[in-house]
Amino acid sequence: MKKIENFLKKNKNKEVVAVQGLGFVGSVMSMVCSNALRGDYAVIGIDRDTKFGNKIIDKLNSGIFPVKAEDPSIDKLLGSAKLKGNFIATHDSSAFKYANVIIVDVNLDVDKKNSFNGKLVDYNVDLKPFKKAIKTIGAFCKENALILIETTVPPGTCKNIVKPIIFQCLKDRDLSTKKIKIGHSYERVMPGPDYVDSIRNFYRVYSGINQMSEVAVKDFLKTIIKTNKYPLTRLSNTNATEMAKVLENSYRAMNIAFMVEWSRFAETANVDLYSVINAIKLRPTHNNMMFPGIGVGGYCLTKDSLLASWSKKEIFEKGKPLLQSEHAVNINDQMPFFAYEYLKKNIDVKNKRVTLLGVSYRGDVGDTRSSPVEKLHTYLMEDQCKISCHDPYVDYWNEKNIHVESDVNKIINIPADIIIISAAHSMYKNDNFIKKIAKLEPILIYDTIGLLSEVNISNLSKYHSIKVLGRGDL
Amino acid sequence: MKKIENFLKKNKNKEVVAVQGLGFVGSVMSMVCSNALRGDYAVIGIDRDTKFGNKIIDKLNSGIFPVKAEDPSIDKLLGSAKLKGNFIATHDSSAFKYANVIIVDVNLDVDKKNSFNGKLVDYNVDLKPFKKAIKTIGAFCKENALILIETTVPPGTCKNIVKPIIFQCLKDRDLSTKKIKIGHSYERVMPGPDYVDSIRNFYRVYSGINQMSEVAVKDFLKTIIKTNKYPLTRLSNTNATEMAKVLENSYRAMNIAFMVEWSRFAETANVDLYSVINAIKLRPTHNNMMFPGIGVGGYCLTKDSLLASWSKKEIFEKGKPLLQSEHAVNINDQMPFFAYEYLKKNIDVKNKRVTLLGVSYRGDVGDTRSSPVEKLHTYLMEDQCKISCHDPYVDYWNEKNIHVESDVNKIINIPADIIIISAAHSMYKNDNFIKKIAKLEPILIYDTIGLLSEVNISNLSKYHSIKVLGRGDL
Repeated sequence: MKKIENFLKKNKNKEVVAVQGLGFVGSVMSMVCSNALRGDYAVIGIDRDTKFGNKIIDKLNSGIFPVKAEDPSIDKLLGSAKLKGNFIATHDSSAFKYANVIIVDVNLDVDKKNSFNGKLVDYNVDLKPFKKAIKTIGAFCKENALILIETTVPPGTCKNIVKPIIFQCLKDRDLSTKKIKIGHSYERVMPGPDYVDSIRNFYRVYSGINQMSEVAVKDFLKTIIKTNKYPLTRLSNTNATEMAKVLENSYRAMNIAFMVEWSRFAETANVDLYSVINAIKLRPTHNNMMFPGIGVGGYCLTKDSLLASWSKKEIFEKGKPLLQSEHAVNINDQMPFFAYEYLKKNIDVKNKRVTLLGVSYRGDVGDTRSSPVEKLHTYLMEDQCKISCHDPYVDYWNEKNIHVESDVNKIINIPADIIIISAAHSMYKNDNFIKKIAKLEPILIYDTIGLLSEVNISNLSKYHSIKVLGRGDL
Repeated sequence: MKKIENFLKKNKNKEVVAVQGLGFVGSVMSMVCSNALRGDYAVIGIDRDTKFGNKIIDKLNSGIFPVKAEDPSIDKLLGSAKLKGNFIATHDSSAFKYANVIIVDVNLDVDKKNSFNGKLVDYNVDLKPFKKAIKTIGAFCKENALILIETTVPPGTCKNIVKPIIFQCLKDRDLSTKKIKIGHSYERVMPGPDYVDSIRNFYRVYSGINQMSEVAVKDFLKTIIKTNKYPLTRLSNTNATEMAKVLENSYRAMNIAFMVEWSRFAETANVDLYSVINAIKLRPTHNNMMFPGIGVGGYCLTKDSLLASWSKKEIFEKGKPLLQSEHAVNINDQMPFFAYEYLKKNIDVKNKRVTLLGVSYRGDVGDTRSSPVEKLHTYLMEDQCKISCHDPYVDYWNEKNIHVESDVNKIINIPADIIIISAAHSMYKNDNFIKKIAKLEPILIYDTIGLLSEVNISNLSKYHSIKVLGRGDL
């Protein structure tokens, strides 16, 4: 606590912002707040007193960003915060007592149970860790603080969970509940080169439990987001903004799921679904159409529909889930299995040497959270394949606990029977890379995301067998 | 036939285009061809020798457009064709023998069986009428004609149905099959003020059964479409273009269906889903998101997913339908029932006097084909309601065989307990209209499509109870 007090002494007269949870969102949010566009904050990042939490805290305090990020502006923000001395990380929750603004960026996970082929058998939302995090705030916060929830939550959470907890805590501490402000405004943070811009230069939706809260949220967001270019949208209650976030991601998940059975259709009808979709997307009313692929990954699209459905059936209409949105997740979770099945239709995979090009769930980004490649890897392991993994942005695959080759010169020397393009990293389209891969003389090159261009394919298909998911015979 | 021969004499040296089917698409297509952008065609419109067919033929030959259209350019095209004398309509199929280009614009219907509440119980695609139409062409066409299918068909139709029929007919007539050209290019004709532009000024996808066919289709389309502004997209086979059309419409139908359960969610969580969607649609990746509503109408979106699914399970993968796309139609078909249920939650409808504002399936258009208002009307009739219908674009509701009041001054004098806005005609937003409606002092005003603005609502809600589908309490 001495450190925090010294920190605050150096930053006296500044508004204090505390960020709860220094993960993928909270860490960059801390940096954005330390480098506010208007005014100057003293920012305290708070994470749990665990091995993992303390590792992040130590990194941040040493000027190292805890998340591997491809955005060069992260380092700029970090450097500038260090120079100004207006950021500190700690595991000491009592630091909330200094905060004028508390931003909640903790995770709220869904516990999913999937069968071997990916089918969603059951799921559960455990609110306990989230409630605990809110109670920690309630135990220390000022009675007039602004508590801004950014976590993606089941609709109804601010009203039915956060507000009652905070109010109870304040009452227990003999404080008034009249001055506290509780708001909700979800982030749209994206990994990759626009990591910082995905906060600063992007639209925001916000709400509050009352008008005072609403105004406080708006005034705060204006200091960190370029709202003249990306105007804020106020929604009339917290249910609405909470619903907006999960609807946004459910829309995307559902549109991916929609395309799954059309991919299978295209394969049997020998139709190149990519060219069909490109033709359709010329219509502005259809330009959100998704392409075929190996699956959905990341932290949001794989679970947010379930948060929504859970809210509906648990909070608003007992026993009545959002069936279509749940089903979309169910279908998407099976996509790696479909990709695997299509591979097996074209080659006997048993005991083959396989090179996986890309383990990240997204192109040109090193993010393996819920990557669909994880499941494909499992299926191939079951077939006693000898698998080599490459990813220019990943050297260790946390979820699998395995080494990933990030050196392109090494991967092109590992013999392979099957080469699978499993992430849309642009380097895999490079002609030189393609040529080197071709020299390995694989039996099959399998593009699971339609990354290869027509030119790539026509060059390769002279000597190699090529299959593209969702394209039928080439 | 004398008439046709005289017509051709007057139009000698012109390429002859025959349009089969003079319905909603064929009639405007005939006019677009008579007013080609390049060159000059002699156009023969051919429909069936039935009471309905002859009525259309007579109208067209008298210079009257057979479809009620809000597009003023229709009359211009009609007038110019009359002046040039390069269009004639007939029921005589033997006229196909003169045609260099034959455009197929006949309907291919899906026979749907729905339960009372709209659930899709069963459906069937009967290809017999379509096959018969193709055989009629095969019986008369030149051996080097271009047959261009524009009808929305189950993927696989050109290859597996049209081509074999035409080839067999030519063989039976001792003609060569080497010169015939068969292509597919679907229209995207929309009712309303851009009726003509939806052909001339819009993207097209095309394909042929071979290269010669492909080229012929392209060369023809270039003469009637502004392809410099809206370039054509070639797809590699007819399965692909056929799939593109049904995928396009399935995408739309599915996105509407997706929103249905979220509308119910929003109503229970007291969230204004319209404002949520507006906030989300700011993201370009989400701007195709649909709004809540009373249902899906028109000829395409209510059936095209089923054409696709039928093709998959009958032609390509026996017994394996497109489950999600079928389900989307199933959900959409129930939308009017959901709208009716939400009404009943808010008012006892038995024996009430109800005014339906709008019977068309689309705003500012007079098109009642498969309008969702049809079902709502049925439900209200079952409740012994006394219903008055208004639509500025419709005076007779064919599907219901009832008179529709198109005079706004009359409708505002018919007493009503419940006023339902059931089509998005802009006149219903007009402040004066709203004031007049309000004077009827209905118990409830029910907006089933989110047409009313915030200002409309706040003006009305001072004196009237208002409900909006997908909005919860106002």
